[in-house]
Formats: sequence, C-alpha cells, structure tokens
Amino acid sequence: MTEPVIPEGILTLDRSGAVSLSEQIYRGIREAVRAGLLRSGARLPSTRRLATMLAVARNTVNTAYELLQAEGVITVRTGAAPRVTEGLVLEGKGPVRTETAGGPELSCRGKLLSASMRGEGWASKHGALQPGSPALDCFPFEEWARYLRRAARLERSSDLHYQNFCGLEDLKCQLARHLAAERGVRAEPEQILITSSTQANLTLLTQILTDPGDTVWLEEPGYLGAKTAFYGAGLTIRPLPTDGEGADVLRMTRDNLPPRLIYVTPSHHYPLGARMSLSRRLALLEAASDAGAVILEDDYDSEFLFEGRPVAALHGLADAEQVIYLGTFAKSLLPGLRIAYCVVPPALVAPVSGTMRNTGAAASVQVQAALARFMESGAYLKHLRQIRQIYRTRGNLLFEMLTQRLGNRVEVTQPTGNVQLAVRFREPVDDIGLALAMQARGFAVSPLSSCYLGQEKRSGLIIGFAGATETQIEQGVATLGDLLGCSMPTA
Amino acid sequence: MTEPVIPEGILTLDRSGAVSLSEQIYRGIREAVRAGLLRSGARLPSTRRLATMLAVARNTVNTAYELLQAEGVITVRTGAAPRVTEGLVLEGKGPVRTETAGGPELSCRGKLLSASMRGEGWASKHGALQPGSPALDCFPFEEWARYLRRAARLERSSDLHYQNFCGLEDLKCQLARHLAAERGVRAEPEQILITSSTQANLTLLTQILTDPGDTVWLEEPGYLGAKTAFYGAGLTIRPLPTDGEGADVLRMTRDNLPPRLIYVTPSHHYPLGARMSLSRRLALLEAASDAGAVILEDDYDSEFLFEGRPVAALHGLADAEQVIYLGTFAKSLLPGLRIAYCVVPPALVAPVSGTMRNTGAAASVQVQAALARFMESGAYLKHLRQIRQIYRTRGNLLFEMLTQRLGNRVEVTQPTGNVQLAVRFREPVDDIGLALAMQARGFAVSPLSSCYLGQEKRSGLIIGFAGATETQIEQGVATLGDLLGCSMPTA
Repeated sequence: MTEPVIPEGILTLDRSGAVSLSEQIYRGIREAVRAGLLRSGARLPSTRRLATMLAVARNTVNTAYELLQAEGVITVRTGAAPRVTEGLVLEGKGPVRTETAGGPELSCRGKLLSASMRGEGWASKHGALQPGSPALDCFPFEEWARYLRRAARLERSSDLHYQNFCGLEDLKCQLARHLAAERGVRAEPEQILITSSTQANLTLLTQILTDPGDTVWLEEPGYLGAKTAFYGAGLTIRPLPTDGEGADVLRMTRDNLPPRLIYVTPSHHYPLGARMSLSRRLALLEAASDAGAVILEDDYDSEFLFEGRPVAALHGLADAEQVIYLGTFAKSLLPGLRIAYCVVPPALVAPVSGTMRNTGAAASVQVQAALARFMESGAYLKHLRQIRQIYRTRGNLLFEMLTQRLGNRVEVTQPTGNVQLAVRFREPVDDIGLALAMQARGFAVSPLSSCYLGQEKRSGLIIGFAGATETQIEQGVATLGDLLGCSMPTA
Repeated sequence: MTEPVIPEGILTLDRSGAVSLSEQIYRGIREAVRAGLLRSGARLPSTRRLATMLAVARNTVNTAYELLQAEGVITVRTGAAPRVTEGLVLEGKGPVRTETAGGPELSCRGKLLSASMRGEGWASKHGALQPGSPALDCFPFEEWARYLRRAARLERSSDLHYQNFCGLEDLKCQLARHLAAERGVRAEPEQILITSSTQANLTLLTQILTDPGDTVWLEEPGYLGAKTAFYGAGLTIRPLPTDGEGADVLRMTRDNLPPRLIYVTPSHHYPLGARMSLSRRLALLEAASDAGAVILEDDYDSEFLFEGRPVAALHGLADAEQVIYLGTFAKSLLPGLRIAYCVVPPALVAPVSGTMRNTGAAASVQVQAALARFMESGAYLKHLRQIRQIYRTRGNLLFEMLTQRLGNRVEVTQPTGNVQLAVRFREPVDDIGLALAMQARGFAVSPLSSCYLGQEKRSGLIIGFAGATETQIEQGVATLGDLLGCSMPTA
C-alpha cells in the first residue's frame, strides 16, 4: 500500500502565529477536499505521520483532525487510516480561505501551481556552470538575426492573425523531417505542436490527460521541471527506480493506483545520464500498455551525443498512441527563443490544439518562421555539429578536472553528451549548503539531492559545462575542491 | 556448428535511399529480437558474412551492429560471433506499431480545457471582415524587421537563459511609462507580467485565483475568450447584465455564491461597445470589495479611441489590490507577435511569476527586446496614430454602408474606437446561419447570439473593419444585404 499523499502546497504553514497551526491544517485539508485534490474515500496520513511531515506537535494535528471529523469531512476509525468521508459533497459553504498579508488570496489550485519545487540550493540567478544552459558564446547571433529579419519582412500570411495557436505548418514540416532522420520519430507534421518551452509541454499534456489525484510515475532521481508540472496538476507522484540501464518499471510495486502518465528520459536519464536499455524500453511500453498510461518521453538532449549515432527515440518503438515525444530548442539554440514542441498521437491532435487555442499558449509566429528557414537551409545542422564539438571539449575538460582534483571523493563518468553532468559524492555531503556556497562564489551549480522524491537521496552536484569557458571550469572545480577540502560540510 | 540464420523478410532491404541501409538492418534485427524471432543468446552472422548475404558494404553492417551493441541488444566479443545478449528480457508481443482506434482518453479537466466555446457560426479560417484582427496592410513590416534584427544581434544577456519567464525588465519599464501616460494605470514595472496572449492572461489568472466550482461574473453578452477560460477552469459563470452604461452589478441578485472574479471591459464593452459610466464603476468596485472578488479589467482596445482622450482605466480608480489590468499588442501590432501583459497587485507578483515559471508560459525574449526599443523610440506611438486614423476611416465607412443598405433592419452605432462593430437585427434572425452563409462567401463575420450566456439573446453580427479594404467593406455589406433581402433566414 502506498503512502497517502497530501499535496504539499496546501499545507505550507505560516509559523508567524497569526493563525494557529491546527487551524491552518484544518483549513488546508478541508479546502483540498472541496477543490477535489483529496477525493472522497482518500486515505490521509496518520496524526503521527503528518506531525512528522509538517514538523509540528502531534496534538496540533489531533486538533485539526478532530475539527474535520466533527464537521464530517473525514472519518477516523481506531486502528485504520483516517479517510476523507465517502460520498462527501462540500458545497454551499464557500471556500475556506486563509488570511494573507493583504491582496487577493490564492486558490488551492493557485497554491499548487505557484509553489516552487526546487527547494533550497537552486540558484535564482544565472551564473557560471549553470546546468541546462547552452553556450551563448557559440550562438550565431548575426546569422540568426538575419533569418529573423527576413522572416519578419516576408511572413505576411494569415498565420499572423489568431488562427494559428499550435504552430506554423512550415516549421512542423521541417521538424517532421528532422525527427524522422535524426531520432527515428515517424510522425505527420500535424502531429507536431509548437509550444514555448518543455515546461509548457509538460503543463499542457499533464492537464489534458490527468485529473487531480491521478498517479504519475517519475524517474528517481528525476527532472524537477516534471515534478513541478505534476505537482501543479495535483497529481500523486510515485518514484520510478533507475540505475545504469535507466528507469526500471519492474521494480514498481503494482497497486490499485495505476499511473495515468509515466515520465522518462530514455536517451539520457536526467540527471545521471544512463541510456535506457532495450529490455527496459520494452518493459516500460508493456507496463504503460497494461496500465493504460501515456508515456511522456522527454528527449531533452538528444542533439548532443558526442560520439556515434544516438539510439533512436522510444517513440519509434512504440504503439502510435502510447508515447508523446517532447523536444526543445532551448539547448540546441537558446532558451530565450521560447520554442519547444511535442509529438502527439493522431487522436490527441484535436484536443491538444483546442487546448492550446483556449489557453493561449503560443510561440511567436515570426520566430517560428525564421526557425523553419534556419532548419531548411542546413544552418541548424551545421550549428549542431559545431556546438557538439565544443560541448564535448568542455565536458571532457570538466570531467578531467573533477577526476584530477576530487578523484577519490566523487563518482563521475565521462560525459557522452548533454550540456551538464552530475557528480555524486562517495561520503554524505550537505550538497545544498555546498551549492549555496558555490553560488555565493559565482557558480550556479545545483544540488543533486533535491532531484529525489523519496527519503533515500544521493548527495552530489549537477554542473553545467556547455556554456562554460576553460577558465570558468578550472576556477569552478578549484573552488569546489577548496570548499570540500577546507571545511567539508557533512549531512 | 550451424550457420547463424537471420529470419527471412526482416532484412529485406529497401534500396530507394529513403532510410539508410544500416538503419534498416538495425531496425530489422531489433524487431526480430523483440518479436522472439531471434532468441536470447542466439548467434548472429559476422559483419563480413552478413554484408555478403545482403550485398552491402561491410561498414554498413558495422554501423548497425554498433547501434545494437550500444543499446545492449547484442554482445560482440573479439574473436567470437556476435550474439543476442543473454538474459535480455523481451516482453512485448505484437508488432512494433499497432493502430488503435481510440488513443489516450482525456481527463475531465482535459475535456473542459479543450472544449470549444465558440459554437457554430464562428469562422475557423481567417477571412475578410474578421472581428478582432488588426490591419496587416498598415503594419510597418520593414521597420519592425529592422528592430527585430537589431534586438536579436544585441540582446546577449542572461535573459536569454531560463531565468526570465515573466518578461524583460526593459519592456516592463516601457509599458509602465506607457500605461501611466495613456491609461492612468499606475504600477511599478515589476507588477507588469509579459504573457503570450490575452487568452494566456485569462487562463493564468483564473487558475491561480479560483478553484473548480467557484463563481465568476461575466458581462452579458460577453467575450467568448473569457467564457472559454472560465469554463476551462471549471467555474460557474453567471451573466452580468449590461446596457448603454456598461455592466450593472446592481442588477445581480446576491446569493450565497459570491464571485471570486468579475470580468469586465469598461472602456468599450465587448461586443456592444458601451463605455462604463462612473457610477457603474464605483458600484462595481464596491460589489467586488464586498464579495472579496478580484476584477479582471480587459482593456483590449483602449489604443483605438478615434476622438478625444480615452477615459482612464478602472484600474486607476481602484484599490491597488482589487483590479488586475489586461492588455495586448495583438490589435495594436500583430496577434502573431504573441505579446500581451497583465498588471497585478504587488501581493500577486510572486505567485503569478512563480506560476509562469512553473507552467512555462513565456514570450520570445528577442521579440520583447525589439518591442521595448520600438516603444522607446516613439515608433509605437507613431504607428498607433497612423492606424487610429485608418481604422476610423474604415469604421465610418462600414457604419455608413450598413446604415445605407440595411438602415431599417439593424441597430448600429457609429464606432468610437476599436477594430470591429456589432450590428443588431431589429427582427429575430438566425445569425448563425447568416454568419455561415457570409463565411461561405469569404467574409469571416461572427454571430452575436453566441456571445450570450443566458436564454435571452439578441441576434446580430460582429464585423471587423480594421483590416478591411474599402472594396471588402462594400462587397461585404452588399453580400449581407443580399442574404437578408433575398432569403431572410428567421430564427
């Protein structure tokens, strides 16, 4: 039986003393029930468990549960887990809203959507060695600017009006060709929808395919952006174990909460880098098929395999209706272009496009038109070839420096691609404190431990190399060595 | 030892060049393993042997084998035959691609989000006289393209990375100045958030401020885009009566479902055009305050008052926490830029920005940078002055033609601004049928009746004039006259 989950954001406690903690817990749970985030019959944590989770006295939770029970919102039986009362309908009384310091109150949904999942230790400003960032110093600004100008001059079609919220036909055609040739993704252009970011892809697809309380499987450790989208959609997130062969669905215990979505990064597991083996891919497809789940394949860095040919995407192996493929130009060109895309099954084209129109998520038409020409002319492939070499050099340098300087303290493998790598510490280290210390010195590295959902976390750092100069890499590793050597923080 | 056998059929090569030969060999063997035709541990031909069998270059087979090895499908040891990897678990049964009839199911939330609220009679393609569309023929494409190129060349800051999801500081400063001068909206730049469309504004704010089942008041008749966003968020929508003085909250019956949001278009009621009177504005603010509701002020067309100075926005009258102001560049420049904005109270800046980051809704950084310079240089105000004159001429022509040709059949007032006008029929007319008939003749006008929530609907048409040439206006009105005269459809 799985651990009952209370969406975190609804129980973010204000410890200023303005409202009692038990009152806040009472309101939070009642509101979650009202908003459908906790369903009729759903199990709640025991008072002991919730008290631990929230770091409050057990009596505080008791008081809140007693209030909820008195109101009939929850049912508590001795020896059994408390549950949301079956068949409960909360209406007419209006929402329970917490008092805030002034200004409009967020809804329950708003609290989930706006909550930060990054936790402490993630840089709030851009800095050297930042994970996920491409190299601005390799971007062909002059050439791209000419493409953009030409597109802005020449594109005068009705696509500039409101009709086209799901992407320019022309760019879709270029992408269909590119994905077939480079990734083994076979799709008609109309199956490709142009969005503004991977995060927008995740939000869009999660909202369309799940309801609050549904289950999603997410690699452990896994991508925080995905966790953010799933959490924002009110989902129950279950960690999917990974190892050197990638995600392993056979290690998931089956229960009565089959996943609606399974999020994976088969080409290059985020953040540790494993490539998913064929047997794992097949097992994944079968598990998804059994559960009636959709697989979200985030192929976030497929453009950057340094040696040889990349393995084809999972998408090409799968039943056409089972896998949604996610890609982005944020790493191969610039995050600031705000162009990403997803490849959906034919049956989802109409509802996803409809949702894009209704929610107004759309990318600049002129940027899309310029990008279509940039791909068509071969300039995109040329740029990829160039940065692949540069990223390889930078990745290798970072790997060598880390091995030289910290060899016996860290596990790190030579990067085979991507724009970042993860180092794992052999001894437990307070990686959040370490990341903050690095950031204070100008290096925007991220703590590995925050990518874990469960209690068993490895400590380490995620370090970006694509955008880093030789000097930045040398200084960053030297700083890391000093911090670890002089006053090694322990967990 | 028997000769290793590759099942016939799986390696029948297509030599047309559409897919590389090594790719075909790779796929064929992978598929054979998956389908159980090549068992775990089975020997494969040497590269030399297979190359001879298939009459291809040995390197072609090498490439295929390397891919299979990289994926873990086969094991190659020096001096021994390649084999299908021992212990490889292959669970999939059917063919790699099966067509399924249905595809993934939408969630309840997905059904709401993707539903079309437009109903019958709205054009699905762009056409002449389309409401809401600006004039492409007045857009300074050459000048704008130069701004875009310059911004793409010069903007190389960390804003091009992931940090900035809620808008460029520079554009926010320009907008703060513009809104203060032109609309009486006083706000710090950080209160202004840059989105990709009004629809994105509505979705974002509705999701943050309401939970499913909450109540929103929407003008009757009202803006379908707002209805779409509210419906998508699972809200109860109540019609807010309007007349020649705009929305009238005093005619709402108070009950135990106070609104969380009130959506209004005070400057120019959509679609009928009334300007909300001061007394109505004050009553609205009071009602919102009593209910603890947030007002969404959609100032969608404030740039286009043809005569005199526009009335200041409601925002300037209000308590800073009570009104959220929505604006867009879709009508003053181009919908395809995908730039709109909202001005939120200080208390909402953090949660709205957080949600924008988490949901990945963001506008192109380069387009934002170009727009900031376009505003700073005065080019934007110059453009507004020019199109205001052109739109006035076009609006007046449409009004005159309608009056001349259909005078006694329609109610229509001379446009005082905006990019479209609404005609109301004095007798009931099947305006959906009429709109469809117009569309069949190339005119993308919309039926007025579909803008009503309640049963009491006025029939009419919403006709765009901003983007219409003199000829299009004349022909459109003539066609409308013919349709009404020859075979007047009755409701």
